[in-house]
Amino acid sequence: MTQLTLTYFDFNGGRAEPARLAFAIGGIPFEDKRFAFPEFAEVRKQTPFGQVPTLHVDGVQITQSDAITRYAGKLAKLYPTDPYQALLCDEVLQAMEDLNVKLGASFGMTGDALREAREAFVSGPLSTYLRWLQAQLLARGGEYFADQRLTVADLKVFVFVRGVVSGRLDHVPTTIVEQLAPTVAAHMQRIAALPAVAAYYAKFAK
Amino acid sequence: MTQLTLTYFDFNGGRAEPARLAFAIGGIPFEDKRFAFPEFAEVRKQTPFGQVPTLHVDGVQITQSDAITRYAGKLAKLYPTDPYQALLCDEVLQAMEDLNVKLGASFGMTGDALREAREAFVSGPLSTYLRWLQAQLLARGGEYFADQRLTVADLKVFVFVRGVVSGRLDHVPTTIVEQLAPTVAAHMQRIAALPAVAAYYAKFAK
Repeated sequence: MTQLTLTYFDFNGGRAEPARLAFAIGGIPFEDKRFAFPEFAEVRKQTPFGQVPTLHVDGVQITQSDAITRYAGKLAKLYPTDPYQALLCDEVLQAMEDLNVKLGASFGMTGDALREAREAFVSGPLSTYLRWLQAQLLARGGEYFADQRLTVADLKVFVFVRGVVSGRLDHVPTTIVEQLAPTVAAHMQRIAALPAVAAYYAKFAK
Repeated sequence: MTQLTLTYFDFNGGRAEPARLAFAIGGIPFEDKRFAFPEFAEVRKQTPFGQVPTLHVDGVQITQSDAITRYAGKLAKLYPTDPYQALLCDEVLQAMEDLNVKLGASFGMTGDALREAREAFVSGPLSTYLRWLQAQLLARGGEYFADQRLTVADLKVFVFVRGVVSGRLDHVPTTIVEQLAPTVAAHMQRIAALPAVAAYYAKFAK
């Protein structure tokens, strides 16, 4: 059996989380190697681009989060085999990654700079992408983003939206998803309620 | 037959070029809808994120360049069916896209600002990614980036390297690929010499 080791920060979100969820839902054994934030300076030295997540596949280190997410999706049968449905899935993955990058630009900021950056993020990209997600979901029937079933596109959106509504992002209103994209908010609740997803997060509840 | 319309700037490079090449190599009919740079302000209004390329598939507008590249690769049989080989292909696509973003940050700059940004790009990301590409290529036998055959990963790298050596990027030495990553330079020459690729570019020679 292929040995899989996923290395990422020790929190339930971010760029490794869609792959973690896919492995968990698909029952694919993997080592969930988590490190504390202060250890990042050391961990990144072992990576080619100073970035995480990485996935070791039988000892070979692979970088690039959505490449990893897509691979996890294939192993877990959460990625479309039809090329057009896979295109729709991939479009959502890459759009959400663009949004991650735009949000990430404000990490590390403090005070007024953080507030201004976050307000610009909310009124600009976050609103644009949420409305687009809402439209995509409705165009495909309202339940899933591709293939009329759960795919890694749903997991990627779920992880992002879950972060937005968590209240952990200063100056980002937790109500914005419900306001601008109610179908996406409902989608998030539905994914969270899937037995495999609920069971996965129950393990982390203290 | 599926109607495909790819919309992008009228030049032989950038984010649409790997998909154009994949369609051409695979003999997949598509409308190559090119617009002049000054028209971008108008064209982008028709897109959800103000970005190109877009691909219309039977009238449905799809965004996100690598999603489009991957879809073109599947139609043209230039994308691995094995999940691990596809992971290696996807890793290269996303890494090159990161590099595109880092290079793109200097577009629109002029004078000293451009020179400083480009020098930092050359000594930083460009060197790092070229050395990584060299190592990846050697690890897989030196000919192709995945699946021991031509895939869209090769086309993505080819388009980027072709741009670097073209001399069109001010303050980027055209010799840097040969210096830091000679195997990648040879790879570029080999892809350019493929009959389908040579025939494709011959159409644009005046």
